[in-house]
Amino acid sequence: MYIEVLPYAGSAMTANFAQKVVVIIDVLRATSTMVTALANGCKAIIPVLTLEEALEKRSLMPEALLGGERQAQRLEGFDFGNSPFDYVPEKVGGRRVIMTTTNGTRAIMASKGAPYIFMASFLNVQSITWALQRKLGENPALEGLVIFCAGTEDRFDLPDILCAGMLIEALGTDVELNDLGIAARMLYQLNKNSLIETVLQSNHGQRLISLGYEDDVIYCSTTNILPIVPLLVRDEVIWVTQGMAE
Amino acid sequence: MYIEVLPYAGSAMTANFAQKVVVIIDVLRATSTMVTALANGCKAIIPVLTLEEALEKRSLMPEALLGGERQAQRLEGFDFGNSPFDYVPEKVGGRRVIMTTTNGTRAIMASKGAPYIFMASFLNVQSITWALQRKLGENPALEGLVIFCAGTEDRFDLPDILCAGMLIEALGTDVELNDLGIAARMLYQLNKNSLIETVLQSNHGQRLISLGYEDDVIYCSTTNILPIVPLLVRDEVIWVTQGMAE
Repeated sequence: MYIEVLPYAGSAMTANFAQKVVVIIDVLRATSTMVTALANGCKAIIPVLTLEEALEKRSLMPEALLGGERQAQRLEGFDFGNSPFDYVPEKVGGRRVIMTTTNGTRAIMASKGAPYIFMASFLNVQSITWALQRKLGENPALEGLVIFCAGTEDRFDLPDILCAGMLIEALGTDVELNDLGIAARMLYQLNKNSLIETVLQSNHGQRLISLGYEDDVIYCSTTNILPIVPLLVRDEVIWVTQGMAE
Repeated sequence: MYIEVLPYAGSAMTANFAQKVVVIIDVLRATSTMVTALANGCKAIIPVLTLEEALEKRSLMPEALLGGERQAQRLEGFDFGNSPFDYVPEKVGGRRVIMTTTNGTRAIMASKGAPYIFMASFLNVQSITWALQRKLGENPALEGLVIFCAGTEDRFDLPDILCAGMLIEALGTDVELNDLGIAARMLYQLNKNSLIETVLQSNHGQRLISLGYEDDVIYCSTTNILPIVPLLVRDEVIWVTQGMAE
């Protein structure tokens, strides 16, 4: 299987998504938060690029909640920021959430040409691995995988790359990788027994700690605690069971 | 010292070069070839972006030689390709070479706002380290270092990142790094006893092998054999002695 790893939202311009399965990774914190929200009963997450789109979308579906951040902070008039701890069952159960985040949403929007777009984080690597193996195994027309790390402000983000490396390792040895994929696997192997410490020491980890979000960073660095497979279906990220993912 | 590592020529748009010392790295093969040419007596290398500029520049200085590549191959009518083995003393001794390469030259051009632009490769890491320590130590107005990896066709290039990691390690422990810098140092530490093998296995290494350039890849992965410090001075890359680098 050919796997290409992309370093940040802006790098989509160099990629070809046709016939590729895309996995978006934004460990701190968009995809971790989406996975958590879906695990807590959220019906769907609707990713949008701009604040204006978020407000416009809400005016069309007034029952939906609004979530997202700019510079890691909750937006005025929004129901939630981007902390996974905000998305508790009492609030998100049975509801849709319209979400705009700096990097994660941009990566999702940029890969719209792909037939399948999954969301991964440390929290759900194993479930995503099984879903990818099944999807690629069943569909010979698919030409491989793009692991699209959202990055931070158009920069390489170590937590995302470590998560990409964990996913590559879980997919097994029969893979062909671009250089960033080779590096991601090496970096994961080197750090797999100290993931939380390494994520805490990363630039984005340090920034979130300085804003009071150390618990978020630790939670988002925890592996395989949620059996969730989020897939973008008609502009909504939903939790697909195997039957629904066709 | 703050060190920022950039992954490829196109990533310059996110960087600020004012008051920064820049080190360009294009292991396969632009900076390795420049270092080799200067070691072999080449008077100066004049990097230009396009084929047209190269030919125009030569019409203004007919005594200069022309070197460069597109898709790793020598250009029609040029004296040299981009192989360091082309730049032998009998050919380059005492001569200027106008050079256009896909990624290395683009990175040089993109960092023109910086007060100092050095060229590094595995061949000259130690000499560059000493030059950087001296330059940054003597000049308190300088605000740190940008290690600008040229990459390959706007993609992360493992050989460049490993060389960046070697340079970071040589600069010592009193450094603050962006995430790509942290990753580069880890990747170097993991691969320092198998650099040649890892570079041969990289995407760009494999591509050059398939074109018959395996010897180039091995040579360009050899560390600290040339005591050369190439600096861009008035649009020419020259070998600076300590006194000249002011």
